[in-house]
Amino acid sequence: MATPLRVTVWNEFRHEKVHEQIRSVYPDGIHAVLARRLREDGHLVRTATLDEPDHGLTDAVLAETDVLTWWGHMAHGEVEDRIVDRVQRRVLDGMGLLVLHSGHHSKIFRRLMGTSCNLIWREMGERERIWVLAPSHPVAAGLGEYFEIPHQEMYGEPFDIPAPDTLVFVSWFQGGEIFRSGCAYERGRGKIFYFGPGHETLPVYYQAEVQQVISNAVRWVAPLGWPAAPIGSKEGRAMHHPVPLEPLARE
Amino acid sequence: MATPLRVTVWNEFRHEKVHEQIRSVYPDGIHAVLARRLREDGHLVRTATLDEPDHGLTDAVLAETDVLTWWGHMAHGEVEDRIVDRVQRRVLDGMGLLVLHSGHHSKIFRRLMGTSCNLIWREMGERERIWVLAPSHPVAAGLGEYFEIPHQEMYGEPFDIPAPDTLVFVSWFQGGEIFRSGCAYERGRGKIFYFGPGHETLPVYYQAEVQQVISNAVRWVAPLGWPAAPIGSKEGRAMHHPVPLEPLARE
Amino acid sequence: MATPLRVTVWNEFRHEKVHEQIRSVYPDGIHAVLARRLREDGHLVRTATLDEPDHGLTDAVLAETDVLTWWGHMAHGEVEDRIVDRVQRRVLDGMGLLVLHSGHHSKIFRRLMGTSCNLIWREMGERERIWVLAPSHPVAAGLGEYFEIPHQEMYGEPFDIPAPDTLVFVSWFQGGEIFRSGCAYERGRGKIFYFGPGHETLPVYYQAEVQQVISNAVRWVAPLGWPAAPIGSKEGRAMHHPVPLEPLARE
Amino acid sequence: MATPLRVTVWNEFRHEKVHEQIRSVYPDGIHAVLARRLREDGHLVRTATLDEPDHGLTDAVLAETDVLTWWGHMAHGEVEDRIVDRVQRRVLDGMGLLVLHSGHHSKIFRRLMGTSCNLIWREMGERERIWVLAPSHPVAAGLGEYFEIPHQEMYGEPFDIPAPDTLVFVSWFQGGEIFRSGCAYERGRGKIFYFGPGHETLPVYYQAEVQQVISNAVRWVAPLGWPAAPIGSKEGRAMHHPVPLEPLARE
Repeated sequence: MATPLRVTVWNEFRHEKVHEQIRSVYPDGIHAVLARRLREDGHLVRTATLDEPDHGLTDAVLAETDVLTWWGHMAHGEVEDRIVDRVQRRVLDGMGLLVLHSGHHSKIFRRLMGTSCNLIWREMGERERIWVLAPSHPVAAGLGEYFEIPHQEMYGEPFDIPAPDTLVFVSWFQGGEIFRSGCAYERGRGKIFYFGPGHETLPVYYQAEVQQVISNAVRWVAPLGWPAAPIGSKEGRAMHHPVPLEPLARE
Repeated sequence: MATPLRVTVWNEFRHEKVHEQIRSVYPDGIHAVLARRLREDGHLVRTATLDEPDHGLTDAVLAETDVLTWWGHMAHGEVEDRIVDRVQRRVLDGMGLLVLHSGHHSKIFRRLMGTSCNLIWREMGERERIWVLAPSHPVAAGLGEYFEIPHQEMYGEPFDIPAPDTLVFVSWFQGGEIFRSGCAYERGRGKIFYFGPGHETLPVYYQAEVQQVISNAVRWVAPLGWPAAPIGSKEGRAMHHPVPLEPLARE
Repeated sequence: MATPLRVTVWNEFRHEKVHEQIRSVYPDGIHAVLARRLREDGHLVRTATLDEPDHGLTDAVLAETDVLTWWGHMAHGEVEDRIVDRVQRRVLDGMGLLVLHSGHHSKIFRRLMGTSCNLIWREMGERERIWVLAPSHPVAAGLGEYFEIPHQEMYGEPFDIPAPDTLVFVSWFQGGEIFRSGCAYERGRGKIFYFGPGHETLPVYYQAEVQQVISNAVRWVAPLGWPAAPIGSKEGRAMHHPVPLEPLARE
Repeated sequence: MATPLRVTVWNEFRHEKVHEQIRSVYPDGIHAVLARRLREDGHLVRTATLDEPDHGLTDAVLAETDVLTWWGHMAHGEVEDRIVDRVQRRVLDGMGLLVLHSGHHSKIFRRLMGTSCNLIWREMGERERIWVLAPSHPVAAGLGEYFEIPHQEMYGEPFDIPAPDTLVFVSWFQGGEIFRSGCAYERGRGKIFYFGPGHETLPVYYQAEVQQVISNAVRWVAPLGWPAAPIGSKEGRAMHHPVPLEPLARE
């Protein structure tokens, strides 16, 4: 069996407290459903939520996290910038990041992308068909040519993101839109995956194929066991290299 | 002849005031040398510098700018965040951005890249040989397989940037390093080019091939004449699309 | 006005001779409709077809061609391998290539891609909606966020191509599929664009947006005016470089 | 421990028979050295060479091969086209391919790339320094920021290949050139890695870092356990999909 990873499942965890309809779908919060599956995969999973001190993302927690998953929606603005700084640094140093659904507008995803991450949306519970464009990518393992989600919020193009390093999924929506719903990025020493499906009022995270993708993605974004020194930084290898690797012949 | 562009050449313009050696190379500032060449190309060029109000980058100036070039080094931290926000928005809406040399660590470049943009460096005036990896890219037009800069500061890998959408140049350095010195990006509706060569104490910006690249790059990053509405934003097309493009058959 | 290009519009030109229905849509052949638009753009256009000697693609013709457009369908297998070799060499040396619709299975496109270029298809005249994913790419100039073709043959994923260097368009189909319908590639010194829309029995090539894309694509794939020497080849710069560019200090 | 792979190490195996100097470095052939390391990794390794029937690459052998490694140099032209067809098909169906050093000019690599794969070269035993550009890519696992090969044949740019899906390594050469020496591609359902270092008269394949890369690359190119059906092909899912996935409302 593959090495277990230390996964921190982050959830804004507000919707589930205030909306009865959402609580009925995710009674213990979205994070509980995600954590259950990742524990079944053998990982060491903890959860963290917005209203904990430091949003549950202390230096100590992040230092012990190989992969962070992120779900947020109504309170992106309440995530403190100093925590965003901290998470960004950890990703660039190698921690994997899986961003889910409405996390597209989270501060951390926008920070790492450098773009607005705007998209278009509509909530009518229409059908989404997720097509696999990169069949040899690890995140697509075990899937067929496509899979369907019977009722899903529409997220559509234009989606203002950098072109993914690998575009793994593109979704078809019943109402006429398409969406880059599986986007793989490498940033610094870290890997990032954005996965579109998932919603707070629909039981999308219980669906087998969706859980399969999340399971695959957590494995794929995991670090390779690199040394912790940030790329070219003062803390790691000094940025100033006064001594050349080769003799500079004076001419 | 091609359409003239409205180019704003931005320079930190501090070095040239305080270091005699730098003033002797660029008596009117680096921006003056860049602006001269771009005027010869037929463009409508203005300059802007750090110590002007709003760093010379008011809303009005940016609204009339097709392409912004950026040179900064010792005072990146003094660029105000609200101006960085403003420039970022304009790039995502379509304004071209050419980032030069030590601009790799500017707030605006780091913001748009989402990474630390760290690199390694050494100042010994060694030889740099710039190899063309994407011969069909417009920024490489008119160049041979490589060109040389006799004396240049070394900038080397690891360079903590997203993999470029197109990697146009990679440099060889005498002291043993390599560097991704020509990096093309598309972000939002805008294009960004990072060009490594250029230094404040060396007459690099007077060299013909360097000017050729800058001339090409300004042309390449220029917008295509799109309407101004930001991608999927509230100001442009509304983000919420409650009416589907296709009828949703009820099943 | 931009420099006129020497464009050769290639058409298999078989369908139009044998099917009354096709002849009624394209009485002078698909190439005639394409050529008319490109002449209106100011280009110097000639046409070439399968049944001419050398399929109309002699060394002399190709030497005078900046951009070649390709439409074929029922007779891909009749294109001689030596002509495919010749066209491939010219593309790698810088000639632009625009491959249209069923040209996805032409020998020349499969040769340049290295993959099977298989896809799925269905002919029911359903609606196609072409979404723009790379709004700053020259091929998308002048388009909105999407455009529609009222009746089109469905071409769908999985489409067995290398991930495009830039993915410009992805299509939504009424019947539930998506398709990478605008794919930009750089190969050798040449540029290639694949454009999905277009069909022999539907008047797709008369539609304004389709003509706009073809017009843009011809301009984009055009060479930059490089010297003709093939990359690293014996005919150009010798492949063997026995003399190093730098002195090799003996240690 | 990770699952063992079925690896076929292919070697032209001509040099070693005719040149005393080469035999002294690789007495049992280059394949023997590569196979030894891969067996130590726990894989099920067989070897195959040019002068065997079908070059040792029968349908039966390929059907039982997860990863094929390729070394050839002086006899690329003797590899039969029908075997190249066969290998290409298997790669597109998911078999991994690792192409080593002078394999850049093999028929199979050129076929899969669609370009000439020309490069420049010089044989003076100079120093090569391999820089890691994609530190989070599995092929770079366990390496530092760079590693060196003390004496190596120079392979340099322009290297006429498609831009890699991920550019993992770029080499610096003492004589003044650079080279994209670690190139990752996805084609069809298969993955391909090109690795530049390695030579028939130099003991490069005995070096620890080189073996580490080969070990990593074999693991990375391995298939994900997909079903064998080729993408969109007649043998797998039928290419013609006459029945839409969605009802086509007649309007």
